[in-house]
Amino acid sequence: MPRPQKHVFVCAQSRPAGHPRGSCTERGCKPVIDEFFRQWQARNLFTTVSIAQSSCLGPCHLGTSVVVYPEGVMYGNVTIDDVSEIFEKHLIGDEVVERLVAPADAW
Amino acid sequence: MPRPQKHVFVCAQSRPAGHPRGSCTERGCKPVIDEFFRQWQARNLFTTVSIAQSSCLGPCHLGTSVVVYPEGVMYGNVTIDDVSEIFEKHLIGDEVVERLVAPADAW
Repeated sequence: MPRPQKHVFVCAQSRPAGHPRGSCTERGCKPVIDEFFRQWQARNLFTTVSIAQSSCLGPCHLGTSVVVYPEGVMYGNVTIDDVSEIFEKHLIGDEVVERLVAPADAW
Repeated sequence: MPRPQKHVFVCAQSRPAGHPRGSCTERGCKPVIDEFFRQWQARNLFTTVSIAQSSCLGPCHLGTSVVVYPEGVMYGNVTIDDVSEIFEKHLIGDEVVERLVAPADAW
């Protein structure tokens, strides 16, 4: 397969309960990851979008964190309800979902 | 922290023994991941380079797979012995390590 147009990484990091940084798992990333893969299949985007889960992306306090390359757009506080908009606006429409973009110094 | 200049994802995918696709774990990715994190710390590149491990990046037959963004360069068959060169040439020197680049259709 040639290089996809968008490559999405969804943070799946976990940490022990009470860890001061918290984690995306603690903040509910697992159902978000499942929803990304579910919609990826339902929308049949295998050749244009790649999706992976990753270890820590950095902004743990804004989990669930999601980064989209090659643009390098970091989304924070992503919930299941946001996944459709990320697909439709950004991954298909090539338009950043501004309301979810993490602050520039949050990486 | 501001956005890093380079974001490295090293595949950590595993599959059951005998799976027809194999996996980067079967092909030895774990020591490669450790070496990326070791050199990242030893070289003190926390503000310019981010490193994460990821689930499947696609070219399982070329594992260990490593992708560097924002360029979107996919490296294949990466071993511990290649990590220094990737740091020095690409992550610090901004020059792609051509000998390790996966074929364009291998994603």
